[in-house]
Amino acid sequence: MIKLYQLHPSGNCYKVRLLLHQLGIPFETVETNISAGETRTPEFKAKNPIAKVPTVELEPGVFLAESNAILWYFAEGTPLIPSDKLERARMLQWMFFEQYSHEPYIAVARAWIAFYGVPPGKERELEERIQKGYAALDVMEGELKKRPFFAGERYSIADIALYAYTHVADEGRFDLSRYPAIRSWFERVQAQPRHLRLSDAVPPATR
Amino acid sequence: MIKLYQLHPSGNCYKVRLLLHQLGIPFETVETNISAGETRTPEFKAKNPIAKVPTVELEPGVFLAESNAILWYFAEGTPLIPSDKLERARMLQWMFFEQYSHEPYIAVARAWIAFYGVPPGKERELEERIQKGYAALDVMEGELKKRPFFAGERYSIADIALYAYTHVADEGRFDLSRYPAIRSWFERVQAQPRHLRLSDAVPPATR
Repeated sequence: MIKLYQLHPSGNCYKVRLLLHQLGIPFETVETNISAGETRTPEFKAKNPIAKVPTVELEPGVFLAESNAILWYFAEGTPLIPSDKLERARMLQWMFFEQYSHEPYIAVARAWIAFYGVPPGKERELEERIQKGYAALDVMEGELKKRPFFAGERYSIADIALYAYTHVADEGRFDLSRYPAIRSWFERVQAQPRHLRLSDAVPPATR
Repeated sequence: MIKLYQLHPSGNCYKVRLLLHQLGIPFETVETNISAGETRTPEFKAKNPIAKVPTVELEPGVFLAESNAILWYFAEGTPLIPSDKLERARMLQWMFFEQYSHEPYIAVARAWIAFYGVPPGKERELEERIQKGYAALDVMEGELKKRPFFAGERYSIADIALYAYTHVADEGRFDLSRYPAIRSWFERVQAQPRHLRLSDAVPPATR
C-alpha cells in the first residue's frame, strides 16, 4: 500500500491526503516529527535526500518527494489534470507560483504564529512574509474574479495545491474577509466529491 | 513569433532561451527593467499577474508565466521530458526543489552580491541564504553521484532548471570546487546539442 510520510497539520502533506482520498487510492500514513529532526536522519534522507515531508513510498523502496510532484504523479490520466496543453501548463504555472510566491510566506507565517513561535530576531522578517503573503492573495483574488478554478473551468491539482494553505491562512493572521472571490472558491473546492478536511483523520484504507 | 519578456542575466529567463534554442523554436526577446518597476505596471500585470519575468507571449494576447511551467509547455512531446511516468514525476520533483530550496538562496545571493548589492539590514539574511544554498548544492552533489542527470539517464528540463543558477553560483560567492559531481554534470549539460550560454546573445530567429 502507498505509504505517506507526513506531518498531519502541514498543508503540503494535506494536499496529498486530499488528492489520494478523492481518487480513491488507499494509503497509510507515517507521522514524522520534523521538530525532533526525524526528516534529517540518514535513514530518512535515504528515502528523500531533500529531507522534507510529504514523501511517499509508492512501492517498497521507491520514493517520491515534493508535494506538487506527488500530486502530478497520482493525478496523471485523471480529470484533475486538464487535457488541453495550454491549460495543463497554466495549471503548472499556478503550482510553481504556489511554491515560490505563496507557501514561503503564508505557510511559514502560519507555522511560526500557530505552531512554533516566531524565531528570535525574525520579527521583521515575519512582517515581510505577511506582506508578501498578502501580495499572493491579491494575485489569487484577481484570477478568481475571472474564472472559477485556477486552470480554467474545472477543478484541478492547482486548486488542491493553492487551497491547502490558503484556507488556513487565518491561522497566520491573514484577514480573508477582504477576499470574496477566494472565499467563494473555497466553497467550490469544498463542494467537490470526496472532499477531505485538513483536520480529518486519515480515512480508512478502503476504496 | 514567440515573444519572451526577460531580463537577460536572470537564470530563470536563461532557462527559456536555452530550451527554445535547443528545440529550434524561433523567438524574440523584450528586455524588461525590473529595477525600474517595469513588471509592476498595470500593462505588464495584464500579461502576467504574478508580475515577474520570464513571461512568454505564445500568440498575440496569450501569455504563460513561471519559468519551469514555460519549460514544460515547450518540452511536452519532446525527448526532454521522460516518457516513463515515474521519471516524469521525478523530473518535476527536482523542478519544484529548484524553485523552493535552491533558487531563493543561490539566485538571490547572486543577485544581491553580483548585481544589486545586499539590501540594508539583510546581512544576516544573506548568510542564512548562503547556508541554505550550500544545503541545496549538497543535495545535488549526492544525486549526481548516483546518476548522470536529474531525471535519470537522460538530459531533461530538470537539468535546464537546475543548471541555470548553479553554473553561475560562484557569482554569489559559492565555492563550487567542493562539488566534483556537479562540475562533471556541468560538462554533460554543456555538451548537449545546441547548447547556449547565459551570456550569449539571443540567437537569430532561424530554425
